[in-house]
Amino acid sequence: MALIVQKYGGTSVANPERIRKVAERVARFHQQGHQIVVVVSAMSGETDKLIRLAKEVQAVPDPRELDVVIATGEQVTIGLTAMALIAAGVPAVSYTGAQVRILTDESHTKARILEIDQHNMRADLDAGKVVVVAGFQGVNEHGAITTLGRGGSDTTGVALAAALNADECQIYTDVDGVYTTDPRVVPEARRLETVTFEEMLEMASMGSKVLQIRSVEFAGKYKVKLRVLSSFEDKNDGTLITFEEDPNMEKPIISGIAFNRDEAKLSLLGVPDRPGIAFAILGPIGEANIDVDMIIQNTSVDGLTDFSFTVHRNEFAKAMEILDAKIKPEIQAREVRGDNKICKVSLVGVGMRTHAGVASKMFSTLAHEGINIQMISTSEIKTSVVIDEKYMELAVRSLHRAFELDSPGAV
Amino acid sequence: MALIVQKYGGTSVANPERIRKVAERVARFHQQGHQIVVVVSAMSGETDKLIRLAKEVQAVPDPRELDVVIATGEQVTIGLTAMALIAAGVPAVSYTGAQVRILTDESHTKARILEIDQHNMRADLDAGKVVVVAGFQGVNEHGAITTLGRGGSDTTGVALAAALNADECQIYTDVDGVYTTDPRVVPEARRLETVTFEEMLEMASMGSKVLQIRSVEFAGKYKVKLRVLSSFEDKNDGTLITFEEDPNMEKPIISGIAFNRDEAKLSLLGVPDRPGIAFAILGPIGEANIDVDMIIQNTSVDGLTDFSFTVHRNEFAKAMEILDAKIKPEIQAREVRGDNKICKVSLVGVGMRTHAGVASKMFSTLAHEGINIQMISTSEIKTSVVIDEKYMELAVRSLHRAFELDSPGAV
Repeated sequence: MALIVQKYGGTSVANPERIRKVAERVARFHQQGHQIVVVVSAMSGETDKLIRLAKEVQAVPDPRELDVVIATGEQVTIGLTAMALIAAGVPAVSYTGAQVRILTDESHTKARILEIDQHNMRADLDAGKVVVVAGFQGVNEHGAITTLGRGGSDTTGVALAAALNADECQIYTDVDGVYTTDPRVVPEARRLETVTFEEMLEMASMGSKVLQIRSVEFAGKYKVKLRVLSSFEDKNDGTLITFEEDPNMEKPIISGIAFNRDEAKLSLLGVPDRPGIAFAILGPIGEANIDVDMIIQNTSVDGLTDFSFTVHRNEFAKAMEILDAKIKPEIQAREVRGDNKICKVSLVGVGMRTHAGVASKMFSTLAHEGINIQMISTSEIKTSVVIDEKYMELAVRSLHRAFELDSPGAV
Repeated sequence: MALIVQKYGGTSVANPERIRKVAERVARFHQQGHQIVVVVSAMSGETDKLIRLAKEVQAVPDPRELDVVIATGEQVTIGLTAMALIAAGVPAVSYTGAQVRILTDESHTKARILEIDQHNMRADLDAGKVVVVAGFQGVNEHGAITTLGRGGSDTTGVALAAALNADECQIYTDVDGVYTTDPRVVPEARRLETVTFEEMLEMASMGSKVLQIRSVEFAGKYKVKLRVLSSFEDKNDGTLITFEEDPNMEKPIISGIAFNRDEAKLSLLGVPDRPGIAFAILGPIGEANIDVDMIIQNTSVDGLTDFSFTVHRNEFAKAMEILDAKIKPEIQAREVRGDNKICKVSLVGVGMRTHAGVASKMFSTLAHEGINIQMISTSEIKTSVVIDEKYMELAVRSLHRAFELDSPGAV
């Protein structure tokens, strides 16, 4: 007998028919003798509908009251899900965030969980009931309803699993796991049976949309065994996200290839190389609330260096203006260059730690395809390159093949 | 400075535009220095929509979970109403039933209020805030959400007014007060400036749909000054429902005429008149969960009497079957007769207590119009007759004229 937390997103509970399907799956687990906590999101589209309604009343809705309004989305789903379970012969009881007492801080619309009272849930579980909890919401110490921000239901699932010391937290979604890369770009992309927490973090932050990154961090912090599965088919066990590398398991060198074209590159050429120059450049960028991703500084030649960084493509114009108008004259750089037609492609894998030659194989593969590398950045488990965005698909496919990610033997 | 509870029904908060109108009125009262508690229903149609959704999931929804689902209707409205107030520059804060702590019994979907914690509301009122409370809902001692049944928002309003010892509870609705009779039947019908609690009870139970009868009883029990007003126009002060008769005020003999055609009449003729006969007849009717309204037994002639009663028209067939198949043979009555083409017309007024001749004037008026009276029943402040339903409008109009209800001088 295991204690399992199952989280279902908005598309999995989009209508009564799908809610009944969820109840059927939960009933099967329950019949196998498992204790089940179900976390549900609002029915798809409901949260947006409520936000629109609120904005009709107040252009910028009061955050406390906005939380009161949007928390109703999940409250409807917990009631309906509990009904569907009871209709299927499974004893069930619903809980809002406040009823569990998922205590959060005071930051309305983006609250952080501080503490979870497991007393009532535990009593219901021990009485053989399925506990259905509203995702995305909590309550602050004054009793006001709070919400956790977009994707917060994943966080609720992981946090409940941590608090209850659950055996597994299963995130049911519309894909059946984490893939070696996006199957829309590489049809041969394979589902990974396991992926490490760190790899998942790199994949998630690189644009893999399977899991909200905050919930992965949370799972890592509390060592929650996390599994991503499809809520529409039961044909496989999805992808398990592991936290300890199994020393007996031969890990593949590379787990997957992440990519995105959301970035833009900015360069300052001919920068006098002196202490404090990086701060002189990035300070004003940070002050303008622009997040910087990759940062590259070449070794200096004749006391001059080149400095490049990437920002989100939406911030490109703003960042260029700051470089041109403010930073270039201040630090007496020779030239400012920008390019928003780039993409970033990353190899991710914990195997990189112990296997040399990953980077050089990556570079030779790209060179073989005639793809010029504009920037390189590496971490322990990731090697990223910036290239012209028109080569993105070509780069991903050739790397996928070169690292044999499409052959099951690679795992 | 007064403390006023204002309750707005579903049509008054049906959309963002109307919610803003409510906020404007509340803002005016607030600017005059009054402390305001606003009680709101779900936006019109929302509760029915949620019930339909629940029934799609479970044909007969689990009552606890149904309450979780339908309570969201009012929760959306409190958030939106508080936003509209804040947008109008009025500090406001919303409360669900659980957040106030409106403690109820355990009867899901038809709970009764046991206790109201006024601590938090009082603190917010004293801080100059408008308090916006969800009608229709509460919480039981286990923390589960309960609802008070249809029309429960009126009850919430009155209960809050009682708990807070408010100066007045204002019920805003789509009519501007209590009328001498239904203006759709008698165009000359007049709005009453005051009506006593007992008269209101008689009017409400007779089909006057202005206020839920339970809230009027509640107001009577706790001596809450209740006022019915229009939420769409501010041209008058509506109708005040009073609890103590003002000895200095010359009360009219008759306050209004109530009527309905929801009833059906059943008669047992030639019933042997012996002790226990009324119970022998009405016992089986009660066991079948059929509510009986009027009951008439004539004096006996030659040891035989006639016994008549009225039931809701929907229960007519069921009641007839019980009389025919079971009661008639048991008590050896001669004959069973039924009529579902009847109506009941009632004169209501506390003045009847001290004025003789009301009943005889009523009977002569009806006789003058050629209307045959089938049953008569009287109480201290009401005289009701059952007549053929085809004469209903004629009877109401002629009585309205005979008792000079259309002339303001009558008040």
